[in-house]
Amino acid sequence: MPNTCKAAVFMGPQKPLEIQEFPVPEVEPGAVLLQIQMAAVCGTDVHAWHNPDAPFPAIFGHENIGIIAQMGRGVISDALGRPVKEGDRVLFSGTPCGHCYYCTISMPLFCETYGKYGLEPLSDPPVLNGGFAQYVYLKPTPWLLRVPDDVSSERALMSLIGNQTTMNAIERAGGIRVGETVVVQGSGPVGMGALNQAKLSGASLVVVVGAPANRLDLAKEMGADLTVDIADFPEPEARVQRVLELVGDKGADVVIEASGGKTAFQEGLEMVRMSGKYVVVGQYTDYGPLPVNPALIVRKSLYVTGVVASTPQTAIRSLESMSTAVKYPVEKLITHHYPLEDVNEAFRAHDAMEAMIPVLLPNG
Amino acid sequence: MPNTCKAAVFMGPQKPLEIQEFPVPEVEPGAVLLQIQMAAVCGTDVHAWHNPDAPFPAIFGHENIGIIAQMGRGVISDALGRPVKEGDRVLFSGTPCGHCYYCTISMPLFCETYGKYGLEPLSDPPVLNGGFAQYVYLKPTPWLLRVPDDVSSERALMSLIGNQTTMNAIERAGGIRVGETVVVQGSGPVGMGALNQAKLSGASLVVVVGAPANRLDLAKEMGADLTVDIADFPEPEARVQRVLELVGDKGADVVIEASGGKTAFQEGLEMVRMSGKYVVVGQYTDYGPLPVNPALIVRKSLYVTGVVASTPQTAIRSLESMSTAVKYPVEKLITHHYPLEDVNEAFRAHDAMEAMIPVLLPNG
Amino acid sequence: MPNTCKAAVFMGPQKPLEIQEFPVPEVEPGAVLLQIQMAAVCGTDVHAWHNPDAPFPAIFGHENIGIIAQMGRGVISDALGRPVKEGDRVLFSGTPCGHCYYCTISMPLFCETYGKYGLEPLSDPPVLNGGFAQYVYLKPTPWLLRVPDDVSSERALMSLIGNQTTMNAIERAGGIRVGETVVVQGSGPVGMGALNQAKLSGASLVVVVGAPANRLDLAKEMGADLTVDIADFPEPEARVQRVLELVGDKGADVVIEASGGKTAFQEGLEMVRMSGKYVVVGQYTDYGPLPVNPALIVRKSLYVTGVVASTPQTAIRSLESMSTAVKYPVEKLITHHYPLEDVNEAFRAHDAMEAMIPVLLPNG
Amino acid sequence: MPNTCKAAVFMGPQKPLEIQEFPVPEVEPGAVLLQIQMAAVCGTDVHAWHNPDAPFPAIFGHENIGIIAQMGRGVISDALGRPVKEGDRVLFSGTPCGHCYYCTISMPLFCETYGKYGLEPLSDPPVLNGGFAQYVYLKPTPWLLRVPDDVSSERALMSLIGNQTTMNAIERAGGIRVGETVVVQGSGPVGMGALNQAKLSGASLVVVVGAPANRLDLAKEMGADLTVDIADFPEPEARVQRVLELVGDKGADVVIEASGGKTAFQEGLEMVRMSGKYVVVGQYTDYGPLPVNPALIVRKSLYVTGVVASTPQTAIRSLESMSTAVKYPVEKLITHHYPLEDVNEAFRAHDAMEAMIPVLLPNG
Repeated sequence: MPNTCKAAVFMGPQKPLEIQEFPVPEVEPGAVLLQIQMAAVCGTDVHAWHNPDAPFPAIFGHENIGIIAQMGRGVISDALGRPVKEGDRVLFSGTPCGHCYYCTISMPLFCETYGKYGLEPLSDPPVLNGGFAQYVYLKPTPWLLRVPDDVSSERALMSLIGNQTTMNAIERAGGIRVGETVVVQGSGPVGMGALNQAKLSGASLVVVVGAPANRLDLAKEMGADLTVDIADFPEPEARVQRVLELVGDKGADVVIEASGGKTAFQEGLEMVRMSGKYVVVGQYTDYGPLPVNPALIVRKSLYVTGVVASTPQTAIRSLESMSTAVKYPVEKLITHHYPLEDVNEAFRAHDAMEAMIPVLLPNG
Repeated sequence: MPNTCKAAVFMGPQKPLEIQEFPVPEVEPGAVLLQIQMAAVCGTDVHAWHNPDAPFPAIFGHENIGIIAQMGRGVISDALGRPVKEGDRVLFSGTPCGHCYYCTISMPLFCETYGKYGLEPLSDPPVLNGGFAQYVYLKPTPWLLRVPDDVSSERALMSLIGNQTTMNAIERAGGIRVGETVVVQGSGPVGMGALNQAKLSGASLVVVVGAPANRLDLAKEMGADLTVDIADFPEPEARVQRVLELVGDKGADVVIEASGGKTAFQEGLEMVRMSGKYVVVGQYTDYGPLPVNPALIVRKSLYVTGVVASTPQTAIRSLESMSTAVKYPVEKLITHHYPLEDVNEAFRAHDAMEAMIPVLLPNG
Repeated sequence: MPNTCKAAVFMGPQKPLEIQEFPVPEVEPGAVLLQIQMAAVCGTDVHAWHNPDAPFPAIFGHENIGIIAQMGRGVISDALGRPVKEGDRVLFSGTPCGHCYYCTISMPLFCETYGKYGLEPLSDPPVLNGGFAQYVYLKPTPWLLRVPDDVSSERALMSLIGNQTTMNAIERAGGIRVGETVVVQGSGPVGMGALNQAKLSGASLVVVVGAPANRLDLAKEMGADLTVDIADFPEPEARVQRVLELVGDKGADVVIEASGGKTAFQEGLEMVRMSGKYVVVGQYTDYGPLPVNPALIVRKSLYVTGVVASTPQTAIRSLESMSTAVKYPVEKLITHHYPLEDVNEAFRAHDAMEAMIPVLLPNG
Repeated sequence: MPNTCKAAVFMGPQKPLEIQEFPVPEVEPGAVLLQIQMAAVCGTDVHAWHNPDAPFPAIFGHENIGIIAQMGRGVISDALGRPVKEGDRVLFSGTPCGHCYYCTISMPLFCETYGKYGLEPLSDPPVLNGGFAQYVYLKPTPWLLRVPDDVSSERALMSLIGNQTTMNAIERAGGIRVGETVVVQGSGPVGMGALNQAKLSGASLVVVVGAPANRLDLAKEMGADLTVDIADFPEPEARVQRVLELVGDKGADVVIEASGGKTAFQEGLEMVRMSGKYVVVGQYTDYGPLPVNPALIVRKSLYVTGVVASTPQTAIRSLESMSTAVKYPVEKLITHHYPLEDVNEAFRAHDAMEAMIPVLLPNG
């Protein structure tokens, strides 16, 4: 084990990330040291980089594949009860506390002591707590999930991106049922995840509404039956009209909002059929109040639900699905690979929408 | 059977209703002639009376208790399979067709040929199709439900008002669970129904937000644990703040919007706890787009659902609950009784919010 | 339209079916006359033929594809609201009454006046009420579903066989979720439907337990990831053990019983994981009490559910899924085609398990 | 704090429990020392006492009310996020680990490292790990729940007995809905809990089947609308028949098995209506295979589910319901109070069915 390793550090809004050297820590009982193999640059990271209120310094990187470099005493199995050993490829997260209000009454993903890697500022002294680094240090009793040998790291990483959160949201809404028609608003990584989940669930028709054209081409390659280009239908009313032409004038059984567009929520309400489902995963940015007609929810007797993240359970099944159930080449959504040193270029490519999903390879 | 009978006829927006004479029809096979015992004047009726686009002439009255006066050949049992005979007190509705898109895929309550009594204009020649009349003619194969002997007509009527629709909405949201905290927005007939359903479902704390004070007093008599008077908290932010003081700062497990207020939907989103349920029955009036923050649905991982009406199933169980399960004197919500001739006075009392629920007694 | 047509008539248990001539009726308002294109010989038919108590004479055939030959006045659209016309290929059933106990409280599929074609004895005078005939007469207001042009009649028929009932059962159990492991007990037509539904729902691993070997080969062609041949594991304990080796010793997320075997129910309880789901569609034959350990349901906190048939909704979505969602050549499960005259040979081939699914082509 | 305290120790099957002296431990960070106020003697304890395979020595007592005597550093709030301090009355349990197979995929109640107080043998050196003692030592990060001031310790204890497990089971089955008919099989503590939950959920009619007569009288006092005495109907067929007379020949909407009787499961299947729910909490004892007809599950399209215990969430809401929602004097089900020294007399009174629920008061 080396004494030190490199990490890319966020130094403040819109400033270049810096490559810094950190000590590689001793591994205490129950903890795990991971070598990062691949870390995705996510929209969340780029939003934070633009956000004037984002705390720093910080090591970003919350969607990662790592290799177990060292295990503290007592770590013996992953979340499926399978033995783990040094050299295993794994997904990981912290563990919810199990005894607070959120763990008990609400959802463990809101647990306040749930260690979130890549989403929190550096402590003092700093701990390797994000994926944009050669190593990450998992505090005692982490949640680990071994990647099956027949699943490439790219597909394993894709199980985390877009897919696990949309899976969670769709299931909270009661699921997409075999033979249903689905509209996905948005053609970014989350929209692609929603598309993949809809196809996996046996939807008979999936329409993706998005832009630009090359992303819609990619959507077709990922199984979209039909697409609507926002450039062709720049007005919300026209988009709704076009979608109803494609899915039938009674509306879609399920609409998934994965765009975060300001008019998207109201558009989606107009695309769902009477008593249909509206699953919202794309309103993560808080714009404050927007024009929405709540009377539609009553008059059409809709279900509306959303979630902000996944659960450990959906993470597991999302990974399981990558072995054979997913029939599309979802790994192609990872369009750019960078060494750790080029982290700022990776951010630029994401920000400019040149890349669908850029990843860092901190250990080459 | 008399040859003719009286009905109150809506003659156009804001015009006095007229008492007119109609022929009592022959009863064809499968049809039923009912003598109306009690008919509620509902907010829907008063809204229609104000609505410049409401079609007329029409016999209103969609919440009724009737007595079977004559049964066509082939009518033998009610919706629970119990035999019916002349003289039985019943609730009734039309029957959904069973083979259209709405009956099959969506919800039967949207079935286009589902006969809705008291909600459609008179045909030519007119048929007695509303409850503000001495008799109503139920077209072949109506949906009938016998009122148990131990349930007064007032309580039976209350099973239809506020209760059956909120029951349907709550159940679509997955139910209120024993020991949960519930906020009801609104203290009119629908809010009282929501309150009653929350108490029936074992809620540990029910807070009613409404006005004026005498309606909140009535809410307390109907089981409300706490109330918030809008007169004391005229601003939405203050109401939200007050509710969080009462239910705990993490928010209520379930919030039910039963007011139809323009700011109510957004207020309700702010009152629900993380991953809680928001049940909307009060946004029946379409004001068009209102300021709403959809980011809350995602960030708080909420369920939001609404319905516009009940199903035959919830109607049955709402009536069943009136025998012994409902512990509160809900019949006291019927505050005014009128002979058919005083229909215009009943409308006035409702419009002026003097009456909580006025009823007509067309046969005295 | 011809004046008469042929039908195969069941003349009593284990007696050869007879080809008889029937008058082709006048079509009354709301009714539809269909020319039968393809009718499946189902296990239910063969069971009835063996059953000493089966009423006769009767025209069997409850899984059929027909072509609209003549429409009574007022028939204008199918269950999805799409216009229908003479010459259209359709699926069909009767329509539940909409106002009885079963339609209201329980499930419409138990409605006592729900016309079931191919499942009831002939009336006097006889009406063409089953699919083993050149024509079938649909009584007023039937439930119709147009077959999309891109779906072959074989695939449309397959949507009815095994698939729609297992879809209904799985959905009642809360669905199979993406990435779950599924065991199917049985490799006949119902087992193949369960397999297809599991793959459609995104299962990550589907194990089929059945026999003989050629059926298991067919299961693999239909997407089964692994199979267990009963001939190799004749004892229940050994089968359970083998399944746990394949799905992991904690058991499968979902087990579907589609075999009807006498020991199958108890075996299945032992194959499900703690808090997993057991979906039963194969215990249609009533053997009376069998050895079952109900303590497993409690100790493992299982969900167990079953259904005997589909709903109109699942029939629609099962057909929709046949356009593009089903990736496997399910039409190959129709292994034998016969003219109407060879109905007895079709029964023999089914009874001898030579055929997976034999069909009749009454009009050649 | 005293240096030592007393506990009742199980010394082996059918041997008298012994009062022994144990050292009161130092409280490490995160841990809590509780003074036991009241501990119920449960059927599980008496079964263990009879069980030739039960491990010993052990301190029983898994349903307890305690008072915080000393808190380790870092313990600040209960499961609802409310501050706790010395002197507070609390319910408690261990905390599931949050990262194993059961916590992630199945149910946390099956977590193997979930500390279960009163259900495990003594370690060496012994730790005070059961409620039949003056003090119990809660290992770091316990799950705590403060008892509201307006809830007596008796009612708080009752929230744990029968109620929380039946609540969990009923909710897993989709809930009892307002206005439904419910049959409870069994009139012991679990049956009384099921009765209470049914009434809390708004059931319109609850029938309790049990014995002896004094327990059925108590059931009536707890809200049972009707009862069936097994002494009057000793044969399963007669009991089924009697229940159908009381609930209507179509069967009950929901049946809850809370008796553990050998014939009870099959009886219950026969009492449920078509497509109704069967909730099993009473088959805890494993008798091995019993005569059961699984064809009923399919033919009647039933839901069947069971659970072996509660979740933290149902424990919280069960306690919340005791403030005002529960209208019946459930504390009267605690029929006998004993000092710790009389633990053997408490076991005898339970075993002889003299006591409904006996409790120990280890600190007088």
